[in-house]
Amino acid sequence: VTSPTTSPTTSGAGTAPAVVVDLNADVGEGFGRWELGDDAAVIATVTSANVACGFHAGDPSTMARTVRTALEHGVAIGAHVSYRDLAGFGRRYVDADEAELAGDVLYQIGALAGICRALGARIGYVKPHGALYNTIAADDERGHRHARAVLSAIGQYDPALPVVGLAGSVFLDAARAAGQPVVAEAFADRAYTPQGALVSRREPGAVLHDADEVAERMVSLVRTGSVPTVDGSTVAVEADSICVHGDSPGAVAMAWAVREALTGAGVELRAFAPGPQAG
Amino acid sequence: VTSPTTSPTTSGAGTAPAVVVDLNADVGEGFGRWELGDDAAVIATVTSANVACGFHAGDPSTMARTVRTALEHGVAIGAHVSYRDLAGFGRRYVDADEAELAGDVLYQIGALAGICRALGARIGYVKPHGALYNTIAADDERGHRHARAVLSAIGQYDPALPVVGLAGSVFLDAARAAGQPVVAEAFADRAYTPQGALVSRREPGAVLHDADEVAERMVSLVRTGSVPTVDGSTVAVEADSICVHGDSPGAVAMAWAVREALTGAGVELRAFAPGPQAG
Amino acid sequence: VTSPTTSPTTSGAGTAPAVVVDLNADVGEGFGRWELGDDAAVIATVTSANVACGFHAGDPSTMARTVRTALEHGVAIGAHVSYRDLAGFGRRYVDADEAELAGDVLYQIGALAGICRALGARIGYVKPHGALYNTIAADDERGHRHARAVLSAIGQYDPALPVVGLAGSVFLDAARAAGQPVVAEAFADRAYTPQGALVSRREPGAVLHDADEVAERMVSLVRTGSVPTVDGSTVAVEADSICVHGDSPGAVAMAWAVREALTGAGVELRAFAPGPQAG
Amino acid sequence: VTSPTTSPTTSGAGTAPAVVVDLNADVGEGFGRWELGDDAAVIATVTSANVACGFHAGDPSTMARTVRTALEHGVAIGAHVSYRDLAGFGRRYVDADEAELAGDVLYQIGALAGICRALGARIGYVKPHGALYNTIAADDERGHRHARAVLSAIGQYDPALPVVGLAGSVFLDAARAAGQPVVAEAFADRAYTPQGALVSRREPGAVLHDADEVAERMVSLVRTGSVPTVDGSTVAVEADSICVHGDSPGAVAMAWAVREALTGAGVELRAFAPGPQAG
Repeated sequence: VTSPTTSPTTSGAGTAPAVVVDLNADVGEGFGRWELGDDAAVIATVTSANVACGFHAGDPSTMARTVRTALEHGVAIGAHVSYRDLAGFGRRYVDADEAELAGDVLYQIGALAGICRALGARIGYVKPHGALYNTIAADDERGHRHARAVLSAIGQYDPALPVVGLAGSVFLDAARAAGQPVVAEAFADRAYTPQGALVSRREPGAVLHDADEVAERMVSLVRTGSVPTVDGSTVAVEADSICVHGDSPGAVAMAWAVREALTGAGVELRAFAPGPQAG
Repeated sequence: VTSPTTSPTTSGAGTAPAVVVDLNADVGEGFGRWELGDDAAVIATVTSANVACGFHAGDPSTMARTVRTALEHGVAIGAHVSYRDLAGFGRRYVDADEAELAGDVLYQIGALAGICRALGARIGYVKPHGALYNTIAADDERGHRHARAVLSAIGQYDPALPVVGLAGSVFLDAARAAGQPVVAEAFADRAYTPQGALVSRREPGAVLHDADEVAERMVSLVRTGSVPTVDGSTVAVEADSICVHGDSPGAVAMAWAVREALTGAGVELRAFAPGPQAG
Repeated sequence: VTSPTTSPTTSGAGTAPAVVVDLNADVGEGFGRWELGDDAAVIATVTSANVACGFHAGDPSTMARTVRTALEHGVAIGAHVSYRDLAGFGRRYVDADEAELAGDVLYQIGALAGICRALGARIGYVKPHGALYNTIAADDERGHRHARAVLSAIGQYDPALPVVGLAGSVFLDAARAAGQPVVAEAFADRAYTPQGALVSRREPGAVLHDADEVAERMVSLVRTGSVPTVDGSTVAVEADSICVHGDSPGAVAMAWAVREALTGAGVELRAFAPGPQAG
Repeated sequence: VTSPTTSPTTSGAGTAPAVVVDLNADVGEGFGRWELGDDAAVIATVTSANVACGFHAGDPSTMARTVRTALEHGVAIGAHVSYRDLAGFGRRYVDADEAELAGDVLYQIGALAGICRALGARIGYVKPHGALYNTIAADDERGHRHARAVLSAIGQYDPALPVVGLAGSVFLDAARAAGQPVVAEAFADRAYTPQGALVSRREPGAVLHDADEVAERMVSLVRTGSVPTVDGSTVAVEADSICVHGDSPGAVAMAWAVREALTGAGVELRAFAPGPQAG
């Protein structure tokens, strides 16, 4: 966690290589009859679990089951908040006004917190999902407006609750300026531009498919603070946490490969947030 | 509040007449573009506000606005939990299984609690809404199953959180047996049978429309612990709280008449739950 | 199809064995990001496809894709109408009143018809889904009320549109009395009582898992008009159509086994409804 | 209706003043328990009724009631299609992809058509609602993409079905190019720029509140083909139809004033679409 008053622990080429990193993944993304991914396998792999809160996925029963699995594995629980968009899985921009989006975010955090409380668990962080995540990472009117909404909601709920965002994005700057603890996130299976941005999914090569290559890149990222880019150079990328996926058998295998490579390289996998048990 | 280890304060003919009672009403029952009732007028009348939590009404922005109004008036805030039934306003029985209904109840309590927390407020009690309220008041398989779900959810969330239910119903017995504080509720505008049950809405005369008559009945109820019944007798009815309505101008006027009559008769109107400010 | 003025073609022990039967299955039961079953494989197996219409599953894009697949395979298209219950997949009874349920049924039929029309397809029949299917098969107040709603909707929409229901149920009687063409349905993988009813899923042995046994039973059903029951006797069961499942690889394999056994026994598989191409 | 092969009847200063115009209004915008506006009064005022189809408002029972009222008054029925956004009343842009939006539009048209068919009515036209209406009026990537989706859906459903859009917008050009009959719409209570665009609602004076002034402007518009603008000039505006509102008592009064002024000035109010009775 990069708190507003301390230096980032992992960013910046030239500093000593980090030896601790978090692995996070999206879980609890079924809804009612529908399941998505193998949550038990994913949760056994990561240190932080982003739990869907009902607006893009995650009915209350699914949420409760996911929280129980996180408790069993001692994995930190994050509120994975989204636009209200069940039909679009939260992947579509919704032009909510600032106050209504702040309300939606609070509603979702609270709903997950209620389920956690009943099960002896707690929320350790918040991570915006899908289109909301991407919108607030962008340096434009919509991004600023929705970033304010998200930060207002989290700040009012708990000014000490960490928020996860895209490494290098204006959202992290805004969160730091608001005094909210921030967690810079890198993506295991995504290609980076020389500027440290993600290559757009519309470009060829944006998504990496070779598990060994991905694992090796992440070891490099954690140990050196930088990753190779699409033009062959390297670029510094903050990585308090690395996002892996679990929505297909191949994705789970890749996540496990990243985990094994990191621990094999002496990197400690540790959640930035407190454990899932209610304090 | 009738806690499980103390005697009811208001029930039982023969005891001294109660001089304190709570007035509650449903609020925050708009959704997005749609408004319902005059929440500000209703909240100015009652001592406890049942706030819709999104499953039958109440989007997050409406919830936040309602919580703010309750804070301004110092009125206790209740989570008005419902079946997931926006199209039916929670007035339709939904045959949820026990675990999923418990999850739905927790989700709603948590969502309102999240909004309350952000605004410096807190939830003082839980009141099931509509079809859920009626289902758990009934002494049958569905009623028992859904009562267990509701009580399991509330008990896991907070075993000290009062729950409001129909005076004389098996739900209150089940809640007491589960150790949850209970609040017995009477209805200002409903006729009672000689057995102390509500006259079914399908019967003529089930709903009373004369504000003066209703107000007088409530004074009688609070001072004597009993109300006139449809056959001319009187029957003892527990009334820790009296439910009034606010979804039409006439309803608000009736609620105000009840309030004025009670205070004019020296009855103190006081919420059973702590005030809305977070402790 | 059993039209109201002609004798059933397949029911009744003692008549010549039927040599034609329909095979139907539920398809299009994903929603947005979520998929369910292998629709292409299922549609390649059956003669009639029950397409979810958005109330228990089936967003418009999924509906369009499913209709296209049915067109490619020349499989008849049915509107698989449900209670409004996305979170419960339409498996929960919802106590809708008669007029609102009739409206919901019309809305769903129309929505699918709109998509069909745009794609050059048409709806060949209606089949109630899940809890609605079971409710209207029951001889009680709820069953009668919801059967009236379903039949009113279909009859107003098109009095010549066949409706699929449980063989031997009061719903089929009511549909016949209303003049709607009816299709009696048997279930390939369900055990039957000596009275010709389905063994409740709460009983052991209610669901059959052996594909060969299931296939053999269906050949017997179509050729003799009867199936073995749980007590070793046999019972006559109408079967204008046989329902198979496709929501798991095992289910698809069983459906295929039923198909192969029937065609191997000289039974012609043929939809009761016209083909999917708009006339 | 401006068909692609004939000249507009009402646009262009210098031509003879039109003596026929349509008046349209949004109706059926309640949902379940919630009502909005006085549909009976509005429908008695206009010649075309835009009926909500369930995505921004309008449950099936409300839709059926609204269609019945339109039938009683002989008012043409339009499908008022929207983004899937019940919580935002369809007033929020939703970044749907082209195919899914086309599916959503088809679904809504079909759903209303199904209800119409059951009641002996028919759909006379389609009008996009709210944010969708505004999005497709804009000359940008999103506008073009969503215009294609809307036109693809309507064209596949019925290439002869008129579509209503903002007078002077690129959407009307695209619709004409696609061969769809178009209806250019003016807004009774909105101020116009010298370029013939609507003054943004964010500007002061964007919405006119004086019923007499509004009525007089509309008489001028229909008779001269132009309206006064905010800088005192006049501008030509196409107006096959004039949109009035009915969601408040004041709005209904203004709509009635427009109607009375137009008929008083010898203008014939006539729907561009066939009447609501199924042909």
